Amino acid sequence: MDGIDDNNPVAGIGEFALIDRITAGLAGPGFVEVGLGDDAAVVGLTGPRVVVTTDMLVEGRHFRRSWSGPEDIGHRAAAANLADVVAMGADPRALVVAVALPSQIEISWAQHLLVGIADECRTVGAAVVGGDTTETDGGIVISITALGDLAGRKPVLRSGARVGDVVALAGRQGWASAGLTVLSRGFRSPRVLVDALRRPDPPYTSGPEAASVGATSMIDVSDGLVADVRHVAAASGVTVALASSLLPVDAPLKDTATAFSTNPLVWVLTGGDDHSLVATFPPDVEPPVGFRRIGEVVAGDGQVTVDGEPFTELGGWQHFGSSG
Amino acid sequence: MDGIDDNNPVAGIGEFALIDRITAGLAGPGFVEVGLGDDAAVVGLTGPRVVVTTDMLVEGRHFRRSWSGPEDIGHRAAAANLADVVAMGADPRALVVAVALPSQIEISWAQHLLVGIADECRTVGAAVVGGDTTETDGGIVISITALGDLAGRKPVLRSGARVGDVVALAGRQGWASAGLTVLSRGFRSPRVLVDALRRPDPPYTSGPEAASVGATSMIDVSDGLVADVRHVAAASGVTVALASSLLPVDAPLKDTATAFSTNPLVWVLTGGDDHSLVATFPPDVEPPVGFRRIGEVVAGDGQVTVDGEPFTELGGWQHFGSSG
Repeated sequence: MDGIDDNNPVAGIGEFALIDRITAGLAGPGFVEVGLGDDAAVVGLTGPRVVVTTDMLVEGRHFRRSWSGPEDIGHRAAAANLADVVAMGADPRALVVAVALPSQIEISWAQHLLVGIADECRTVGAAVVGGDTTETDGGIVISITALGDLAGRKPVLRSGARVGDVVALAGRQGWASAGLTVLSRGFRSPRVLVDALRRPDPPYTSGPEAASVGATSMIDVSDGLVADVRHVAAASGVTVALASSLLPVDAPLKDTATAFSTNPLVWVLTGGDDHSLVATFPPDVEPPVGFRRIGEVVAGDGQVTVDGEPFTELGGWQHFGSSG
Repeated sequence: MDGIDDNNPVAGIGEFALIDRITAGLAGPGFVEVGLGDDAAVVGLTGPRVVVTTDMLVEGRHFRRSWSGPEDIGHRAAAANLADVVAMGADPRALVVAVALPSQIEISWAQHLLVGIADECRTVGAAVVGGDTTETDGGIVISITALGDLAGRKPVLRSGARVGDVVALAGRQGWASAGLTVLSRGFRSPRVLVDALRRPDPPYTSGPEAASVGATSMIDVSDGLVADVRHVAAASGVTVALASSLLPVDAPLKDTATAFSTNPLVWVLTGGDDHSLVATFPPDVEPPVGFRRIGEVVAGDGQVTVDGEPFTELGGWQHFGSSG
C-alpha cells in the first residue's frame, strides 16, 4: 500500500507509519474504549481502581538477539509485566509499549516483537492499547507498562504475611534457570527447559484466584525464589520458613540435574524468570488449585530459612550440594 | 545511611536501592492506594475508566545533557505525557517512570531527573507511583506512562470535529520553537523563550474544561500546530481552516522575530514542544477561558489551510515570509 518492504530498515519509515504497521490487526477487546491512534487510550474497568506496573528491558542485559527471536522477546517482556499485575490479585487488561530501535533494524523484527507481546496479552484477555517508537544509536530498549483490574478484590501486597500463614507456590519454578544452565553448557536440550527460558509460562489465573480466597501476601518470582520471598518477609516483618522436601522438583529438572551431577534444588531456590507466584494464606484457608504448600510464616525479621537454616544464595550452593 | 555518596556512579548501587533513593520523599496523594515498592501500584479513580499514554525520550534525539539539566529534562518528559492525558479531557493522576542509565552517570543526576518529573506532576495533582531503572551501555532512555481520570467526562478524540465547529487554541504556541532558534543562533536570551524550550508550560486545566463544555475534538501540539491539527482533520474527515490574523503572536515572539528579521508566524504554525492544546467546539458553545479562536472546521478531506491556502511546512516558510 505504501510501498514499504518489511525487510527494509526502520530508518526509512516515520514514527506514525511504523506504529500503524506493527500494530495492524491488533484490534482490542470490548473494554478498550479508545485504542491506538489518539493522544491516549481509554480502558474500561469494572471499578474505580487501576493496577499499574512498568518494566524496561535493555538489549545485551535482559535479552540478546542472537539468543532469542523477536517473538520470544515479546512474550518474555509482556509476561514480566502481566505477572506483576496478577501478583497484586488483578486481571491484566491493557499494555502500552514503548520501543527504542536502532535505525538499521528490519521493520519485520519490530513487527514480530509486537506480535509476541500481543499474543502473550491474548492468553490473559489483555490488549496492547498504546505505544511509542523512537530511533536510537544504542541497543534496543523495550519499556512496557501494564494495567490491571482488581474487579472488586483487595490488592494483595507484599506486606500482609502473618505468623502462622501457609506459604504456597504456583507455576513452574527453576525451569528457566535450568534452561540457562543447559544453554550455557553448550546444549540445546531438554528443549522444554530451553523453551522455558525463552517463553515463561506464568500461572496467570492463580493470582486473582489467590486474592479471591484471601491470600495475605503475594509476589511473582522474577529474581529468584528465595530472593523474592525475602521481599515478602522484609515487607511483612516476618520470617518465611521453606522446607526443601515441599519444594517441587519437576521431572525435567530432576533428569537434567542427574545428567549434570548437580542438585536441582539450586535452580528451584535461586532461579528467576519463571514468574511463578508465591502467596501466603491464613491457616484456615485452602489455597486455590495450582498452589502447593512450600513452607510457613514464622516470627522473625525479614529472613528466609530453608529447613530451618538462614539461606544465602552463596551458602545455599554448598549446603544443598552436600545434602542432595 | 547506606554509605552511598550521590556523586558516585549509578553502577555501584543496585536497582532497588536506586529506586528507593531517587523516589525518597515522593509520598503520593490520597488516591494512591499502593505506591512504590510492591509488584505494582494501585491508583484510585472516580470511575471505571482509565486514560493511558506512553512516551519515550532518547538522549541525543529528544534531549541533550549539555543542553538541559536533569530537572528540566524531567519536567519536559513528564509534561509531554501529562499533556496527552489532558488532551483526552482527563485529569492526570499517576505516572510510572522507567529509565535506562549509563553506568557512569552520577546518582544525583537520576535523582534530579526524578525531582523534575515529580515536580511537574505536582502542578497537576498527579504523582509518580512506580518505576524501573536499569543500566545501559548506550545513552539515557526515559520512558514514561501517564494515567488519567475522566471523572465522568466523555473522552475527547481527534475524530470528532464537525463542519461548522470553531477551532480554538489554549496555551503558549511557538515559544519553544523560537527558543530553539535563539539557542541555535548562539544567543541565550530572551530567557523566557529559552526557558520555554527547557520547560514547557502546557495549559493543563484547559483540557478537562474543554471536555466539560462539549469540545468535539482535541489534540496537544507536540510536533507543530499545523502538523498536529492535520491529525484532527484527517481523523475527522474535515478540513481545518486557520486564519493567520487570529493566531496569537505573543510579545516575546514578536520582539525576537523583529531582531532576527523573520516572521514569527512560522514559529506559531510549525513549532512543537509547547504542548498547547487545540480543540474544536460546536458553534453554539463558548470555549472555556484560556482558549482563543484560531479558525473553523470546513468540509474537506484531512487538509489544513491557512488563510484559505493549503499549508505545507516547506511552502509555509515562503508564503508567510513574503506576507509578513
